[in-house]
Amino acid sequence: MEFEVVFLPEGKRCRVPEKTTLMSAALKGEVDLAAICGGKGYCGKCLVEVIEGKVSPLTDHEKKRVPKDKLDRNYRLACQTYIEGDVTIRVPDQSRVGKQRLVIMGKEPPVQIVSNVKKVYLELPPPSLEDPTADDERLLAGLSAMGYQNLTIDTPAAREMPRILREAGWKVTAVILGGREVIALEKGDTTARKYGLAVDIGTTKLAVFIVDLNDGTIVYADGTMNPQIKFGEDVISRINYASQGKERLEEIRGAIVEGINGLLDAGIAEFEMSRDEVYEAVLVGNTAMHHLFAGIDVKSLGLAPYAAGLGRSSDCKARDAGLAINPAGNVHLLPNVAGFVGADAIADILASRLHEKERLSLLMDVGTNTEVMLGNRNGIWACSTASGPAFEGAHIRCGMRAASGAIEKVWIDSDFRAYYKTIDDKKPRGICGSGIIDAVAEMLKAGLIDTSGRIQQVGGGVRDGESGREFVLVPKEETETGKEDIVITQDDIREIQKAKAAIYAGFMTLVRKGGLDRRALSEIIIAGAFGNYIDPKNARIIGMIPELPLEKISFTGNTAGSGARLCLKSLDVRREAQIVASKVKYIELAVQPIFEEEYINAMYMPNSQLEDFPETMREVKAPRVVRRYVRR
Amino acid sequence: MEFEVVFLPEGKRCRVPEKTTLMSAALKGEVDLAAICGGKGYCGKCLVEVIEGKVSPLTDHEKKRVPKDKLDRNYRLACQTYIEGDVTIRVPDQSRVGKQRLVIMGKEPPVQIVSNVKKVYLELPPPSLEDPTADDERLLAGLSAMGYQNLTIDTPAAREMPRILREAGWKVTAVILGGREVIALEKGDTTARKYGLAVDIGTTKLAVFIVDLNDGTIVYADGTMNPQIKFGEDVISRINYASQGKERLEEIRGAIVEGINGLLDAGIAEFEMSRDEVYEAVLVGNTAMHHLFAGIDVKSLGLAPYAAGLGRSSDCKARDAGLAINPAGNVHLLPNVAGFVGADAIADILASRLHEKERLSLLMDVGTNTEVMLGNRNGIWACSTASGPAFEGAHIRCGMRAASGAIEKVWIDSDFRAYYKTIDDKKPRGICGSGIIDAVAEMLKAGLIDTSGRIQQVGGGVRDGESGREFVLVPKEETETGKEDIVITQDDIREIQKAKAAIYAGFMTLVRKGGLDRRALSEIIIAGAFGNYIDPKNARIIGMIPELPLEKISFTGNTAGSGARLCLKSLDVRREAQIVASKVKYIELAVQPIFEEEYINAMYMPNSQLEDFPETMREVKAPRVVRRYVRR
Repeated sequence: MEFEVVFLPEGKRCRVPEKTTLMSAALKGEVDLAAICGGKGYCGKCLVEVIEGKVSPLTDHEKKRVPKDKLDRNYRLACQTYIEGDVTIRVPDQSRVGKQRLVIMGKEPPVQIVSNVKKVYLELPPPSLEDPTADDERLLAGLSAMGYQNLTIDTPAAREMPRILREAGWKVTAVILGGREVIALEKGDTTARKYGLAVDIGTTKLAVFIVDLNDGTIVYADGTMNPQIKFGEDVISRINYASQGKERLEEIRGAIVEGINGLLDAGIAEFEMSRDEVYEAVLVGNTAMHHLFAGIDVKSLGLAPYAAGLGRSSDCKARDAGLAINPAGNVHLLPNVAGFVGADAIADILASRLHEKERLSLLMDVGTNTEVMLGNRNGIWACSTASGPAFEGAHIRCGMRAASGAIEKVWIDSDFRAYYKTIDDKKPRGICGSGIIDAVAEMLKAGLIDTSGRIQQVGGGVRDGESGREFVLVPKEETETGKEDIVITQDDIREIQKAKAAIYAGFMTLVRKGGLDRRALSEIIIAGAFGNYIDPKNARIIGMIPELPLEKISFTGNTAGSGARLCLKSLDVRREAQIVASKVKYIELAVQPIFEEEYINAMYMPNSQLEDFPETMREVKAPRVVRRYVRR
Repeated sequence: MEFEVVFLPEGKRCRVPEKTTLMSAALKGEVDLAAICGGKGYCGKCLVEVIEGKVSPLTDHEKKRVPKDKLDRNYRLACQTYIEGDVTIRVPDQSRVGKQRLVIMGKEPPVQIVSNVKKVYLELPPPSLEDPTADDERLLAGLSAMGYQNLTIDTPAAREMPRILREAGWKVTAVILGGREVIALEKGDTTARKYGLAVDIGTTKLAVFIVDLNDGTIVYADGTMNPQIKFGEDVISRINYASQGKERLEEIRGAIVEGINGLLDAGIAEFEMSRDEVYEAVLVGNTAMHHLFAGIDVKSLGLAPYAAGLGRSSDCKARDAGLAINPAGNVHLLPNVAGFVGADAIADILASRLHEKERLSLLMDVGTNTEVMLGNRNGIWACSTASGPAFEGAHIRCGMRAASGAIEKVWIDSDFRAYYKTIDDKKPRGICGSGIIDAVAEMLKAGLIDTSGRIQQVGGGVRDGESGREFVLVPKEETETGKEDIVITQDDIREIQKAKAAIYAGFMTLVRKGGLDRRALSEIIIAGAFGNYIDPKNARIIGMIPELPLEKISFTGNTAGSGARLCLKSLDVRREAQIVASKVKYIELAVQPIFEEEYINAMYMPNSQLEDFPETMREVKAPRVVRRYVRR
């Protein structure tokens, strides 16, 4: 049985089978609709108004995430609502994407909630002439009777205390931070409302999550570009900018704080929450992002020996950090391992449980910088490698970010004919990271390039362009603009080779410096927003990752964000973070001849060490042009 | 042998014997010169330039308190410099008073310094590629090796840390607060420079002291009027003002913070100190002043049951208090006993050691509100009584504050002739508190008033004025203006009676509520800036204090300030403060019929209970008009 769905205001129509969600229908009908969390009902971004027709009943996710006034007006989450008849829906502007696809969710293991924030409801006896005990003594005596001893009261909370106690008729909820300090006093029983903020500050992307600290659910999730991009696309250029003086540092710090506050504001507005109900924030980022958020002088991060300013975890008042949660709330930053392996790597480890694995496992968080971590419960080796922005579509002739119309999948048949799929199935506008990896891998398999990456003169789409040979992926007639062919150039291939070589050489450096057995590797975990869309087989074919059976390769998404949420929800995990940080052994690649050597090996595809890629070589038709470097 | 002293720019001259200080010479020569600390060399206010002539060598006080550039230009402290020949000195404008005499110094017992602020000098190994340990780990490891464990680093200090460590070549001084937190990092060895701020916020007067936390000396002391006076002269009117909303509270809070910062600024400018070298402030004041400084809602202080907002001591960051010391420094407020017995009373107790006395002792801090404390090491009873501003010259026809030209001493002979002394021996302009007490006591002794306070028609200066009888103290010809007689009116005497009755009735209420033996009283300690100038005999005659031999009565000056300094210098005393606060038993006079009864008794002079004043009655010629109330 099929139903017709009409989308307003554009009036697009499509027919879908029963048991289809409004989200799937929008996808089929090519209607622009946000799906930040991937249709899990977390982000609340796919809000649509059901104008007419029969749909499934409200789910618990919707009851939690759709504002009351909108529920009353028949608003639903498209990903949670099944079509049960012909329907007409309206997609409001704010539910449309029209922007880059940001994956902000990541895999997250379950955890028991042990929050740093406690709420205690008290009914206190009012003072009298016979018992004129001071308000603080009265409050602290009440809390002491509930088992909370040796508390202090934060000055701003003390300021309001006399008024709040009296207006509330001495029935109040005390908010206790770290088991040590009363940071707020609220009228009546507010124990049911307790929120926290988890933030992942990526060099490129910023993700925030508002978490219910009572049950651990994500009540709001959103992402945006890191607003610091205007000060430089990569970490080094931002370090240089911030090193030019206090004002510059404050300017770049202000940009990220404002970015976070902006997402937070949207969240609290949508869920009729007060910022004062968000009592703690846990943030992760690479060391430079971490320092720029904290306002720490970063000059030394840009100079050998690249020592971090802060290695340990740190806590400060939100009012001192400028974060727009409760001003007395706590801002916790996870520890950093070293100048180039930061709190986000710790978060990745915590979320993927690398430090608990029995067998040797490889964890990599792929981004502009890729953190590579190798180890198990006996120890972890880590490095950071400058994989560059090629995987994000930058420095690629027809590259673009993963937005609507980007080619994200590529196949090339034995006749050198190319097939592709774009995001949202729009007419192609360019090619994004996963598409480029596919293209290079497919060209290699088809023999369009040799193992050194050189494009072969085999006809079938290969031609001489302005800057060397290039392969035509999409003739201009098929593109959105209709004006230019979408091509993969020789330079593009070099960029991909450099990026993947950096990652693989990082891995090999850890193997060799750690005295580990490469063949003992049992698992590969690829984290990072970008990772989610990579074809693991193709990543293996180009030699970006070591050769393991596909079932041993997993993609976990934004686990930096997951790790931040884990530490927000659990003080136990927060303690674990400090232990992990102190145990990770950092290898500085800048001073490793081994890295240089492995980098040159890894510039070949899959590698000049062909014996490490026996399976892959069976699939590859590419001419073998390998100059072999003997490992020292 | 005598020398001549010439004072520039006015050109006044006077002759003084040898071994006279410049300060004494200025007094003799009627040259206006500040002597805030009473010539002890503490305040550094009596700075003069020696133009010509022989004077004594520099003292240690001067080496410490005269700025280097002024020392080079022959500036001296007038109170420390003895004349050894004819000399010419110049008195700069800033060393002149021309304003109210503020006594800000008080008696202070010696104490062993146990500062809350520690400075540790470190020489750290710089990072290298082999040892790229993060800066915080490196610093904390260095501190740990010196015995300082489990420290955190305050965020603003962490921000500067990488730069300071490198600029200082890894030789730095860490400033540790409370044994827990690194609040600052300074280049090189700065352990010799460590300052603290002690503040006494009186309802009328504000006193600040900058203390060297290494040796405990006062390096700067200054006082001014409490700038909150513009919001109301007494505590209640300020509470009412501040209760009208957050903005009003913030406004009145801002005034006192600004006042303190102003005095601090003058001090740090004079001693070429940086505000960042002042790491801690300890403040005292009555409960209302304490709350208004802290910004605590005071509405409940003005309404029965008058519960204080904060009873316990509290600490907060200077940046949160708005105090212009090191922003990361600590601001400590002493505990309050109750709504009307505050941190200043605790400070008085600590400075006078009332809690260690073997025998029953009476401590009173005389001011607009007078705190009365009675007890010994076995326990202390306390109350606060509204003695009003009469002792400060307010609500008195010819009353004035204790400034130049105020009558401060009065004698009346048996022929009803009055003699007087003015401050600075200027022509009289009015009469200040100590002068009024003298006048009333002398009138009582001479029989010019009866024991009920009624002026007697005995001729000799008594006349009928516009508002009843009055006694002419100074005929207009002798006054500065020459326009009006200075008189003591019937209403003036009533004001003094009410003021002294409130104090004495407070004392008696404590005696009776505490079940104490009045005859066991062994000592009276009178604190408060005003107290210093009272004639104890006259205070006894009017019945302001119980009858005890004069040698058992002492004046200790501003011991609230002394107590603040003690707590600044010693964590042991700070702990003692909390213990004392928890042990003082507060009596709320507003609900005590005993107080009403004793107040009526004490309206007589010395009292209607004449058997309590046998000695006094022998000296008093006044007709006895006493209606006796039997004590219940």
